[in-house]
Amino acid sequence: MPSVFSSPNPILFGRGAAAVVGDKLREFGCSRVLVVYDKGVEAAGVAATILGHLHAAHIQTVCFDGVLPDPPDTTVDQAGALGVAEGVDGIVGVGGGSSLDTAKGACLLLTNPGPIGRYYARPDAPPPAGLQPLKPIVVIPTTSGTGSEATPGGVITDTQNHRKQIIICPVSLAIVDPELTVGLPSAITAATAFDALCHAAEALTSAAPNAFGRVLGKEAITLISRALPLAYDDGGDIEAREQLQLAATLAAMSILGPFCHIPHELGQPLGSLFGIPHGLACAATLAESMRFVAPGVPEQVRLVAECMGPALSPGATADQVGQAAYGRIYDLRERVELPSLASFVPDKQQLLAAVPHICQVSPFVFSPVAVRPSDVTTILEQAYAGRVESAVAP
Amino acid sequence: MPSVFSSPNPILFGRGAAAVVGDKLREFGCSRVLVVYDKGVEAAGVAATILGHLHAAHIQTVCFDGVLPDPPDTTVDQAGALGVAEGVDGIVGVGGGSSLDTAKGACLLLTNPGPIGRYYARPDAPPPAGLQPLKPIVVIPTTSGTGSEATPGGVITDTQNHRKQIIICPVSLAIVDPELTVGLPSAITAATAFDALCHAAEALTSAAPNAFGRVLGKEAITLISRALPLAYDDGGDIEAREQLQLAATLAAMSILGPFCHIPHELGQPLGSLFGIPHGLACAATLAESMRFVAPGVPEQVRLVAECMGPALSPGATADQVGQAAYGRIYDLRERVELPSLASFVPDKQQLLAAVPHICQVSPFVFSPVAVRPSDVTTILEQAYAGRVESAVAP
Repeated sequence: MPSVFSSPNPILFGRGAAAVVGDKLREFGCSRVLVVYDKGVEAAGVAATILGHLHAAHIQTVCFDGVLPDPPDTTVDQAGALGVAEGVDGIVGVGGGSSLDTAKGACLLLTNPGPIGRYYARPDAPPPAGLQPLKPIVVIPTTSGTGSEATPGGVITDTQNHRKQIIICPVSLAIVDPELTVGLPSAITAATAFDALCHAAEALTSAAPNAFGRVLGKEAITLISRALPLAYDDGGDIEAREQLQLAATLAAMSILGPFCHIPHELGQPLGSLFGIPHGLACAATLAESMRFVAPGVPEQVRLVAECMGPALSPGATADQVGQAAYGRIYDLRERVELPSLASFVPDKQQLLAAVPHICQVSPFVFSPVAVRPSDVTTILEQAYAGRVESAVAP
Repeated sequence: MPSVFSSPNPILFGRGAAAVVGDKLREFGCSRVLVVYDKGVEAAGVAATILGHLHAAHIQTVCFDGVLPDPPDTTVDQAGALGVAEGVDGIVGVGGGSSLDTAKGACLLLTNPGPIGRYYARPDAPPPAGLQPLKPIVVIPTTSGTGSEATPGGVITDTQNHRKQIIICPVSLAIVDPELTVGLPSAITAATAFDALCHAAEALTSAAPNAFGRVLGKEAITLISRALPLAYDDGGDIEAREQLQLAATLAAMSILGPFCHIPHELGQPLGSLFGIPHGLACAATLAESMRFVAPGVPEQVRLVAECMGPALSPGATADQVGQAAYGRIYDLRERVELPSLASFVPDKQQLLAAVPHICQVSPFVFSPVAVRPSDVTTILEQAYAGRVESAVAP
């Protein structure tokens, strides 16, 4: 199957890059923008930093600080309505994936009638036709995970149907500044980095393999494996912060062709149902998912494992390769003290009761191995039990 | 300095991908296209293959088969005029860099008044303002070198001033099909692959370092070092052909931010003055240039060397690193029997007499080390002499 490479978001990456946000918006013709973020970004002082850069460039700002995790459609509608009422001519999203995706939704609604539910798309389909041209939007990530800065996609929670939906909003410019992540608490650093690790590992093992995604995903996994422990131990390690920011962006670019599979397709409903932060919900089944798909794509799972540690024996069987990837993912989980699935879902039966819903909302189209409901049950049971050493040595 | 990533050409990559060219043009709304290629592409039967795919999709075709190496402005004007006279609504470029760049120039001239000289740009500047919207253009490389498929840039020879000029034409779609390169003669395989090797090595060692270019360039050098000898020995080795095609595309993407420096800035005037094919002209000074810049960017030159062979000693000096890169580049040159600079320029004094002209047309802005005219003389003298083993062991 041919590989497609199209990475439509221009990206400005580097320490201190955020200082040019006002100048860039002026180049785009903006003079009054809606700045979209959440209370955490505000408390960390990052919103004030960005507002300062905007005001220094004489850009007027209207603030929407009501972003919520797993951004609900209703919040997006509010942000869009505020932008319309205030007559803004551009959008700036600052924060994690929720802030960036809320900003993308609000951008659609600046020039197109709401509610946002009109604009849900499929990840592998072109954007809905007949859209009015969009206003400029600049996105500025403050975590190293989401990757929303590198893709036109956004994920919105459809609150009526309790499921995630995709919106498509091309980004005028992403500004990826590692200095903005220095204050990120270690637990959030770990959870968001595991989201990026999932993106790259899923890209490498997708049923729609992509030659470009492979190059980008390999580098992302290598960087995360090396830099995450350093940034976890010392949030001020700017070298490690820079590597994680680059890795998150590369990981998102890597998934633009192959799309996500099992860990994200389990993680999204698990996150919604049990209130698990997105990165942790996706990470919850990453080790088990890699082991599960190893018989189908052993060379790809080997690549994931070898980006996380030494080369495996050339003669390793698919099972051994899967076990090695599983072990290395658990090593990294434990190194950064990632909370277990059981810490979010006290009752295992409650978890397993979700399987029919999960199988309804997650088609597993991009899994390289067919996923039956019984497989979902097995993967969730294994993830719930946590690390179990196998007798199979890689 | 922040890294910019913007890779605006969508790329479809893979064996057999060229078969969809007609369907893609239909999606773009085209029904009658100008197909731009040279006599070599025609003789190899590749033009007929592409025309067959177009006719199968009921796309009418007008052929321009007059592409020349280092495409002269006059040829571009002819191609554009043919397209206007025939009322085409799209362009397909098939071939090496000359065909693709001629097609890009003709595309500009379909909707904008000629001659092409009106549209020369700087590589680091936005495209000239006030252009009329362009018609769709699909480019299909048949060599693994130019990288024109991955960039909006084209290089045109300004025949009045005897220098290369840049044009900017965003590409609607690049189709990169390794099967089209299977018939490429081994000498052209080697020369064009060295062009791609220069792109990536120059990207990695540029004065404008780029985090994304580094990732892409590393992979390109690694792939070329492994696959070029295989494809040189057996043109039908489709795995090697695929790796070279991917490498050439990655190498071109790698240079989008950092831009080329010494090898290309020497190679372009050398090519024009002495009629040296572009890849060979750039390759002529690659080994010497890497050794020359090693004192300024030893870690970057180390990366180039280590992508081409085993890891160097951690304590290697800049000189040793430079010598190692020099040696490995010469090893690959010799492995694929690349013609020397002396084989194109029988008189060394004639070569050195070109230094003032070279220094006039080549600003060396992206060299990581300042380049004086005496440095140009030294590099050319060394390249003319060919490989000289140093006593310095890496």
